[in-house]
Amino acid sequence: MQHSPAMVRADMALAAAELLERLRARAPRVHCITNGVAQNFTANVLLAAGCLPSMTVSVEEIGAFAASANALLVNLGTLDAERRAAIAIAVQRASSAPWVLDPVFVDRSSLRADFARELIARQPSVMRLNHAEFSALAAAAPARPAVAAYARENAIVLGLSGETDLVTDGARAADIANGHALMAKVTAMGCAASALVAACLAVEPDAFLATAAALIIIGVAGELAAAKAQGPGSFAVAILDALHNLDGPTLIARAKAC
Amino acid sequence: MQHSPAMVRADMALAAAELLERLRARAPRVHCITNGVAQNFTANVLLAAGCLPSMTVSVEEIGAFAASANALLVNLGTLDAERRAAIAIAVQRASSAPWVLDPVFVDRSSLRADFARELIARQPSVMRLNHAEFSALAAAAPARPAVAAYARENAIVLGLSGETDLVTDGARAADIANGHALMAKVTAMGCAASALVAACLAVEPDAFLATAAALIIIGVAGELAAAKAQGPGSFAVAILDALHNLDGPTLIARAKAC
Amino acid sequence: MQHSPAMVRADMALAAAELLERLRARAPRVHCITNGVAQNFTANVLLAAGCLPSMTVSVEEIGAFAASANALLVNLGTLDAERRAAIAIAVQRASSAPWVLDPVFVDRSSLRADFARELIARQPSVMRLNHAEFSALAAAAPARPAVAAYARENAIVLGLSGETDLVTDGARAADIANGHALMAKVTAMGCAASALVAACLAVEPDAFLATAAALIIIGVAGELAAAKAQGPGSFAVAILDALHNLDGPTLIARAKAC
Repeated sequence: MQHSPAMVRADMALAAAELLERLRARAPRVHCITNGVAQNFTANVLLAAGCLPSMTVSVEEIGAFAASANALLVNLGTLDAERRAAIAIAVQRASSAPWVLDPVFVDRSSLRADFARELIARQPSVMRLNHAEFSALAAAAPARPAVAAYARENAIVLGLSGETDLVTDGARAADIANGHALMAKVTAMGCAASALVAACLAVEPDAFLATAAALIIIGVAGELAAAKAQGPGSFAVAILDALHNLDGPTLIARAKAC
Repeated sequence: MQHSPAMVRADMALAAAELLERLRARAPRVHCITNGVAQNFTANVLLAAGCLPSMTVSVEEIGAFAASANALLVNLGTLDAERRAAIAIAVQRASSAPWVLDPVFVDRSSLRADFARELIARQPSVMRLNHAEFSALAAAAPARPAVAAYARENAIVLGLSGETDLVTDGARAADIANGHALMAKVTAMGCAASALVAACLAVEPDAFLATAAALIIIGVAGELAAAKAQGPGSFAVAILDALHNLDGPTLIARAKAC
Repeated sequence: MQHSPAMVRADMALAAAELLERLRARAPRVHCITNGVAQNFTANVLLAAGCLPSMTVSVEEIGAFAASANALLVNLGTLDAERRAAIAIAVQRASSAPWVLDPVFVDRSSLRADFARELIARQPSVMRLNHAEFSALAAAAPARPAVAAYARENAIVLGLSGETDLVTDGARAADIANGHALMAKVTAMGCAASALVAACLAVEPDAFLATAAALIIIGVAGELAAAKAQGPGSFAVAILDALHNLDGPTLIARAKAC
């Protein structure tokens, strides 16, 4: 059955509002193996959304943290030997919990792209990435049919960021037009968005819906923040305030998903 | 001799005001072995309070940094092999300087709890921790008599955070009711508070008084920040401004210690 | 030929305005091997100035990142074994790209000072440092003739920060009086300034001019930020906004170089 764009839009907006409520009610534990640049901002984004972040990358401890987390983020930024080993352990231990892959900068390092491909074979629920990163992994331009085909072949939900974000599991697709240009001027904004996808996966089993909801939530927060900001510094502050203060009706009113 | 609650409150408020003056006059060097999430915010909190932070965790260099520091913070967040080795060296080198232990997330990792116990045996002046962390270490609920007993048995000052903070050396106890709920919504706020305890230890030999003063200082700064904040993002910014601008009369007027 | 101070001042101000335009037009890739405290703020400063930062320190990946970068920053803060190895690889790979050395805290660790001397022998274009760091490396007080002599002997441009910044290649010298006292109250501000020097080197082959321009740009942004700030927290936010919004006429009007 085909949904009309208008119907899908209302579905998505409602789902985003409901998922935000669930995040605050359940306060899921989200463990993030992420890069040193992004750790602090990512933790603050998760706290502002009502979650409990943890961030260790130690190989000795990662198993215990991953096993007690409700969702896991694997971000390949500032990848090093310890992070690679920690990721391998965490992905195994988190086998009952959903996980998100953010293949940061795979277009700048073939070693990192190879490692990302190994991880994709281990079945993350979602991969959130940008156009250059998709092209590096899929060896194809990020055109709509190629993205859907890649999602199907790898049995993964893709959240492809761009001027409009594309979310697809190969069968379903949603375009999320929320967000603001200043989001690209704050480091780790994409990494934090991926962490929020992981958080939504902790409270919503449909990975397609969880991904779309997370991107709507961060996008609407970005729009609200931009209305108060004088530049990227005050924007990064205001988006944390906006996430913390966000409510369902605002999400429903502002969601641009089709 | 027993102090009446009212007397203690005035003592503590005055001590906090005096210690803040000393921090600014002496600008103590505070070396922090702390987690990657907390490093930046902790350094900014220490700078705002008038101190000179340093943050290296390299095993080759930690000895020189610890030996030239006036106080040391050992925070177990994002613990890894290098941090463990660095901590062992630092604690030895800092034998003449006071140090604070912050056993972050020992309730999530038994390995980390074991390491924390080894460190407690090496006699930190102060341990600052939350209820879950206390329970994990002491194998007891954080009831008042159990906390005091643990402090006495380990010859340590405890700063137990909660809705009201409890500071005790086993003989004396103070309840600090300053602070704001938004402090729990900013990552590394507790880590930064522990660093401020270390800073106060650098200028005050009575570890009980230093701990209470540090928690009053950060708590009052949090209240002033909350009055200006729209959420956790602007709160984290405003607390740095508040610390930088804080003066003795404001501390004395607002301290809630008994 | 000797420039009159007034002539030099106008040259520098114009150069700063032109370089800022070039940064925004070319968006150079600036790879930073920098400390964990500084990574996030440094990335945000580079983004605010229009550049594309990357930050990995992994020995496996650093070669690819350095080879595709337009300029490189080597900052010795939180130095560890992996960073040392990464620096060695990066400096070799970046042989065609200019690089900046920031010898953070060499006055606190002789091991770090030795490593800095090895790196100076490998010919960075610029070294940006403070008075204590200069004294530790040059074994001389940072008096003007000693600084110029050191620059000549090492065939390096020096950017010596202080109340007034001194930029010299041994033959030419400029004093930059822009900036604000709050810059010393925000951690990683100097590290970020060094990253901005690297960014300017990516678009200007004259390292003396690039260094002076970068210090004018960050200094003017600091003055604009201070006018809006209530303390170091809001200052750190406002300087990112100011960098993002900065324009050539403002730079020309406010530059204090002689």
